[in-house]
Amino acid sequence: MIRSHEAGTLRPEHAGTTVTLAGWVARRRDHGGVAFIDLRDASGTVQVVVRDLEAVSELRSEWCVKIVGEVRVRPEGNANTEIPTGEVEVVVNELTVLSESAALPFQVAEYEPGSVNEEVRLRYRYLDLRREGPAKALRLRSKATNIIRTVMEENDYLDIETPYLTRSTPEGARDFLVPVRLQPGHWYALPQSPQLFKQLLMVAGMERYYQIARCFRDEDFRADRQPEFTQLDIEASFVDQEDILALGEKLIARIWGEVHDYDVQLPLPRLTYADAMSRYGSDKPDVRFGNELTDLTEYFAGTEFRVFQAPYVGAVVMPGGASQPRKQLDAWQDWAKARGARGLAYILVDEDGSLRGPVAKNLSEAHLAGLAEAAGAKPGDAVFFAAGKRTASQELLGAARLEIGRRCDLIDESKWAFLWVVDFPMFEPIEDDKGEFQGWHAVHHPFTAPTAESMDTFDKDPGNALSNAYDLVLNGSEIGGGSIRIHQKDVQKRAFDAIGLSAEEAESQFGFLLTAFDFGPPPHGGIALGLDRLVALLGGYDTIRDVMAFPKTSTGGDPLTGAPTPITAQQRKEAGVDAKPKSEQPEA
Amino acid sequence: MIRSHEAGTLRPEHAGTTVTLAGWVARRRDHGGVAFIDLRDASGTVQVVVRDLEAVSELRSEWCVKIVGEVRVRPEGNANTEIPTGEVEVVVNELTVLSESAALPFQVAEYEPGSVNEEVRLRYRYLDLRREGPAKALRLRSKATNIIRTVMEENDYLDIETPYLTRSTPEGARDFLVPVRLQPGHWYALPQSPQLFKQLLMVAGMERYYQIARCFRDEDFRADRQPEFTQLDIEASFVDQEDILALGEKLIARIWGEVHDYDVQLPLPRLTYADAMSRYGSDKPDVRFGNELTDLTEYFAGTEFRVFQAPYVGAVVMPGGASQPRKQLDAWQDWAKARGARGLAYILVDEDGSLRGPVAKNLSEAHLAGLAEAAGAKPGDAVFFAAGKRTASQELLGAARLEIGRRCDLIDESKWAFLWVVDFPMFEPIEDDKGEFQGWHAVHHPFTAPTAESMDTFDKDPGNALSNAYDLVLNGSEIGGGSIRIHQKDVQKRAFDAIGLSAEEAESQFGFLLTAFDFGPPPHGGIALGLDRLVALLGGYDTIRDVMAFPKTSTGGDPLTGAPTPITAQQRKEAGVDAKPKSEQPEA
Repeated sequence: MIRSHEAGTLRPEHAGTTVTLAGWVARRRDHGGVAFIDLRDASGTVQVVVRDLEAVSELRSEWCVKIVGEVRVRPEGNANTEIPTGEVEVVVNELTVLSESAALPFQVAEYEPGSVNEEVRLRYRYLDLRREGPAKALRLRSKATNIIRTVMEENDYLDIETPYLTRSTPEGARDFLVPVRLQPGHWYALPQSPQLFKQLLMVAGMERYYQIARCFRDEDFRADRQPEFTQLDIEASFVDQEDILALGEKLIARIWGEVHDYDVQLPLPRLTYADAMSRYGSDKPDVRFGNELTDLTEYFAGTEFRVFQAPYVGAVVMPGGASQPRKQLDAWQDWAKARGARGLAYILVDEDGSLRGPVAKNLSEAHLAGLAEAAGAKPGDAVFFAAGKRTASQELLGAARLEIGRRCDLIDESKWAFLWVVDFPMFEPIEDDKGEFQGWHAVHHPFTAPTAESMDTFDKDPGNALSNAYDLVLNGSEIGGGSIRIHQKDVQKRAFDAIGLSAEEAESQFGFLLTAFDFGPPPHGGIALGLDRLVALLGGYDTIRDVMAFPKTSTGGDPLTGAPTPITAQQRKEAGVDAKPKSEQPEA
Repeated sequence: MIRSHEAGTLRPEHAGTTVTLAGWVARRRDHGGVAFIDLRDASGTVQVVVRDLEAVSELRSEWCVKIVGEVRVRPEGNANTEIPTGEVEVVVNELTVLSESAALPFQVAEYEPGSVNEEVRLRYRYLDLRREGPAKALRLRSKATNIIRTVMEENDYLDIETPYLTRSTPEGARDFLVPVRLQPGHWYALPQSPQLFKQLLMVAGMERYYQIARCFRDEDFRADRQPEFTQLDIEASFVDQEDILALGEKLIARIWGEVHDYDVQLPLPRLTYADAMSRYGSDKPDVRFGNELTDLTEYFAGTEFRVFQAPYVGAVVMPGGASQPRKQLDAWQDWAKARGARGLAYILVDEDGSLRGPVAKNLSEAHLAGLAEAAGAKPGDAVFFAAGKRTASQELLGAARLEIGRRCDLIDESKWAFLWVVDFPMFEPIEDDKGEFQGWHAVHHPFTAPTAESMDTFDKDPGNALSNAYDLVLNGSEIGGGSIRIHQKDVQKRAFDAIGLSAEEAESQFGFLLTAFDFGPPPHGGIALGLDRLVALLGGYDTIRDVMAFPKTSTGGDPLTGAPTPITAQQRKEAGVDAKPKSEQPEA
């Protein structure tokens, strides 16, 4: 090692010791013929005193230096209580510049949040990561990853690597494709997840598999998406849903326990999908606050108000919302329209208990009389309504609830609200542009097993079939999901029939997995946790980009390397991009 | 869990216990109105006794079943000492078929080695992995991986994920390319290693990085190559060569200690590249046996035999080789020609000490007289010679030495012969087809630092410059390699100058890394270990395919999934394969 000590580890007990340090010039202050340098390495920062100003005349921020000096306790009154090394300083005998730095595109030690845009930070990511916050995010991720691996090993799961160069399946989300030079005209696909391979490993009798795996999805970029992301992928045989949930809970409890010294209460609460939708209007409810939806469908039975003559009428209260000015109430309409709704009906409850607003005029005296109580509103509140198809209306109210939570400061940001959402529907209806029913679609992948209760009827009554699928939710974000899979051939056939997938289509989409299932597949199931999202929530970061070493921008570019780039004609030719696959060519 | 116990864990102390097991029918024997079934799960196998033959009439190999039964000690004399559960059996009360199996493409429990070719085994890899040997390979790999991670965590290394969708660098080995739909005409490349990113992480001040990373190289397939493979990638700052070697040794000692209870003697032996070539004719010498090369260049100084008037003459002895029939000696010539040599000169030492063979006739009495002793040959031995350019001749003799080792059974297969090869040349000459010198080429990547001794002279005397590069060798296979990197701008410029790389070329190939190096890069270095090869050697497997869950064939195909495949016209269009990059198009 070039150094004898790490800068951040020096304490008064080192006083009198000669140390060799190596790191970066964080700050420099010249004062009374002496230079004070904050020397930073990965362990922290220590103050270094240089008496020979000549020796440091050119020294600037972020130069990399080595110093030899003696540790001493700082003079009385000069201690800095804000850093762990604040009681000591190192008086330099010898200073060597290891490398210099060009002018910085942004300040590192004295970084001003928002002083540069993210694109610049990513272009100089190696400077960005010298800052305490970004570096801490990578350390946190490494720690979380290590805890996860420890738990998985303790539970006898095997870490098995599955291929990244694999087969494109035509019907999924879009695959990233890779031309194969040795088989011109043929392409690999990068896996969207190891799903098929982990199920093959169960057929292979490996019984307990895990992998921290990169996944690739060629999707249109949204705010917090990345073309490659990482998941903790788990699958086990001879298990039921309880086994997988218990393992997920062990992981969560250990991660939050070791990182935040937070005692996660187990078992985690569970909500059925139906309850989550009824009460929170979301399949990933944020239960850090209440303010639940109310179902007023029964209440408004027989109403003459056309809008409320709907299969579902529900409401959510905005505490204190009656005092909103007209402009804000209009803004709620725009908010709802931006979400694809026609608007957001509302009633204001005045301090005297009387109701007003456009909707109020359309309701009968009887319906008005009990409405505040039925909706759980108090004087001074506003009540927002949604009426129409159940799921869409609940989702609108769920989104309004979240917006209300934020605006009215209802969310306790110090809470960790974990829960499982279970008993997902097995199928959802496919509708055409006019909302006409066209058939059924598998909510999760089509190997998801029905619950025991739905086993006999799921294909006869797909609309009410429940599946053995489950999601793990934290503070309103889905951080994981999985299911028990179908392992019985006859059940699988019925599931394919229910979604109208012919034997030929099934074969073309999942052929090799179906073939594998001919050879004694075991009952099995699993889960996948989104590692990027989990770590971002764990550390309180705004985006998953904060917890990735080299994230991409919203157009999939990397400002640091310049990827992606055009390729040369020779690369194109060699890769066989334009070759016709032999299997499609007529025989010579 | 569907089961109460794992089959392989049952022992006499379980006698009397009712257990529920789940697993596969490995073998079935009907005998005296009773069926004996070997029930296998991941933990092992136990004998199950079924009295109701009707219930199992259809049961065949590899069906997946669940049984409920009572454990009992086997009747006197019926114990099977070959399996851990051999003293007990389970008498079945209840048997449920979980899933059936189609006719097997090859036997699983009673697999005959060589009964099917590897392509068939890979197509049905999920059956192949039900066999004890293949499954054990994946378990071993998982264990080795876990030991590695434990050591890296103990040494405070951060596990950091680097991108797999990155930038193509035009001059390296061939990249796998990925078209980018959102930037039509632009392509990602899959990384050949995380080399550039790990160096960026050092510039970023992360100080200690590791990753078990997938690497992608589009090379022509050779016997034991795969288009994707895995390496343990390590980089650290403020270190010197000794630090990295010590870490490598810790890893090796822990892996071999925990897996084989083998005490690796540390520090590992070291050989300079020059010594490895002189003594073993290889930069990855197999030192499980001696039989070293002898350098006879001096000995033959002044010889009149034209062939030996060469910059290098060396020899290797084949013990007992004098008794080889003429046909075998001719076969050695073919062997040498297949390696690109003109032949393999030899002399046979008769039992009376006299020398014969075609070469003997060309040598002077004086040279013949001392030759056996100079070459280290005894009566009855053969001596093979190579003469010509030093490195090529040594490599020929090194290959002959290995072949002799195998044929003469000189290799102690029970040995673990680890060593470091150090002091690699920094540059190697580039020669044209006629062997004329054209310039210098960096042996490792061009950021490899010179040794302290070569620091002043490496660019003036590239032929003698040594680098701070090192390889880890086990039993004649390279399992790792790395170097200390150049962090000084002026040294880097001299290194580029030495290989004739202009500033523009350097910029185009390594631009973003060079830019990063403008901002105070720390001294740093690292190593990468080939995980596939390491595990294959650790477990005594012939090929790296044996230790990969889903390896590819020699043409890059996966017989299981059918990858790679042609893509549809729509996929091609969507992926933007044929789009012209905007930057190359004229402005509209």
